[in-house]
Amino acid sequence: MPELRKDPITGRWVVISTDRARRPSDFIRQPVPPPAARLCPFCYGNEQKTPPEVLAYRPGGGANQPGWSVRVVPNKFPALGIEGELNRQGEGMYDKMNGIGAHEVIIETPDHSLTMAEMTDRQIEEVLGAFRDRVNDLKKDTRFRYIVLFKNHGEAAGATLEHSHSQLIALPVVPKRVKEELDGAKVYFDFKERCVYCDILRQETSAGVRVVTETDRLLVLQPWAPRFPFETWILPKRHESHFEQTDAATLQNLAWAMRSTLRKIDKVLEHPPFNFIVHSGPLQENHLAHYHWHIEVIPKLTKVAGFEWGTGFYINPTPPEESARFLRESGLA
Amino acid sequence: MPELRKDPITGRWVVISTDRARRPSDFIRQPVPPPAARLCPFCYGNEQKTPPEVLAYRPGGGANQPGWSVRVVPNKFPALGIEGELNRQGEGMYDKMNGIGAHEVIIETPDHSLTMAEMTDRQIEEVLGAFRDRVNDLKKDTRFRYIVLFKNHGEAAGATLEHSHSQLIALPVVPKRVKEELDGAKVYFDFKERCVYCDILRQETSAGVRVVTETDRLLVLQPWAPRFPFETWILPKRHESHFEQTDAATLQNLAWAMRSTLRKIDKVLEHPPFNFIVHSGPLQENHLAHYHWHIEVIPKLTKVAGFEWGTGFYINPTPPEESARFLRESGLA
Repeated sequence: MPELRKDPITGRWVVISTDRARRPSDFIRQPVPPPAARLCPFCYGNEQKTPPEVLAYRPGGGANQPGWSVRVVPNKFPALGIEGELNRQGEGMYDKMNGIGAHEVIIETPDHSLTMAEMTDRQIEEVLGAFRDRVNDLKKDTRFRYIVLFKNHGEAAGATLEHSHSQLIALPVVPKRVKEELDGAKVYFDFKERCVYCDILRQETSAGVRVVTETDRLLVLQPWAPRFPFETWILPKRHESHFEQTDAATLQNLAWAMRSTLRKIDKVLEHPPFNFIVHSGPLQENHLAHYHWHIEVIPKLTKVAGFEWGTGFYINPTPPEESARFLRESGLA
Repeated sequence: MPELRKDPITGRWVVISTDRARRPSDFIRQPVPPPAARLCPFCYGNEQKTPPEVLAYRPGGGANQPGWSVRVVPNKFPALGIEGELNRQGEGMYDKMNGIGAHEVIIETPDHSLTMAEMTDRQIEEVLGAFRDRVNDLKKDTRFRYIVLFKNHGEAAGATLEHSHSQLIALPVVPKRVKEELDGAKVYFDFKERCVYCDILRQETSAGVRVVTETDRLLVLQPWAPRFPFETWILPKRHESHFEQTDAATLQNLAWAMRSTLRKIDKVLEHPPFNFIVHSGPLQENHLAHYHWHIEVIPKLTKVAGFEWGTGFYINPTPPEESARFLRESGLA
């Protein structure tokens, strides 16, 4: 009998279709090929092929030159424009504003051949540090209400360049799904006087069946009501609403946890395309008692899309208890 | 300058990225091949290869035999089970219930070679009649709260069999996106004492720029804040909350409008994969003043998915005024 499960934050019901439970090998379709060395705007020596950098970790100095370990540049084809005023206005019953925002690319390594799963903990820690530093810089701009940090890995997940990179979009609005999380978490908080994510951490630690791994500071788990097979969440154990306010020790743990999670996914699902998204509190609201930052990693394993897009109704063929077990038993730390 | 536009029903902001506006030819990737005649469980003579029919329009009589024009059968691999009680229960802080529901397939024609765009108006009218008849039958089962009617056309849109068919899923819950529409429309109604969709119909008719076509009873348009390029909505002009309560004249108009819309999309976008979804009111609530049934048609033209799934934030490269013009100027009625 399939099971309907309710996401405790957003209230979304999903079908966990246990009758046609799928093993990892049922999904493998389009492994992301290893990056092939070739002329690439993100490699050393091609720094002039991108817009001028807004941040670089480079021991030796000299902007827009080789020698960096992480480099952040404006997207050459930005979805939003950085200059101008929002100019909110109506058009009859409708509302619009100028598409003001920042769209940046975080080049995670100078090495064209590395995926994030293959980097060292130290390298990933630098990437996460660049995430934090860019958010802390951009939040000074009061036009922005939210910053989305995300990674598309593999063409099927939306990547157009293979050199390992993440992206950042600063927005004058809070995206819908984030708003749903915030609103749902607020309702829960008002009812229970506890953070729903903190409650999830307690219940998952005690149940154990959906836990993938654990560090001093973080829990990696498969959520109770996942929309997608092998959907993975990484949460800080200590209550914190904003990613950019986390401390160095947590970032260090997170680098290890990201690498560990991506290596397990790569091994168990044979290098699938994936997306990860950092979910954090809105920029102009500090230290929210009801919200808890986290990272969602979503391997792209299924094709169906329009129906889910259209209805918000998801049928997931893999129970999270199964996917957690596959990842735990991958043989990797 | 790109534009941020707010969907007046759900409140979702989308980026209409006018700077990189795309013409239809920029999207064409994977035209759906015409169905190839082959052994198929939906063709005449193979009626025993599906579960026994729950409905068929067959002048001559004789269940599960050839001679039908539209045939509805339970899905052989249903996402939900029809037998049993919901058995709602908790698991610690979480909620679950049995995956009770109906999952049916509407075989739209005995002719394996036809797509819906190539059928006659009369044939499509019969399909829509089968939609209506099945909903009116299933709504007698009080375990069900909502019925989703939808079509996946082409492998990339999730179709696994090429013989033209739609699907129906009856659910004990209202899917999230539908609930968002209902809630947003209710907020608008409480504020304005008017249906938001009726207001959209008035404004769009007057503006004209996003209208694709019009019949006595229906308006076909590109919405103000579409998530996807060429997203198309079909709405009845007269206020009605439930698809299954519409009258014969509207269904007749709708058959023509569906055929017209799909033919235009096929011509302008060269036979893209697509989904359509009937959005209608919840089963146990009749004649809602704030909700208005409609059909959403979504051609599958873009690959990016995980980021949108993760954030609910959409970047649409084609302004709806442009896509409406392309469809209007297709040279087809």
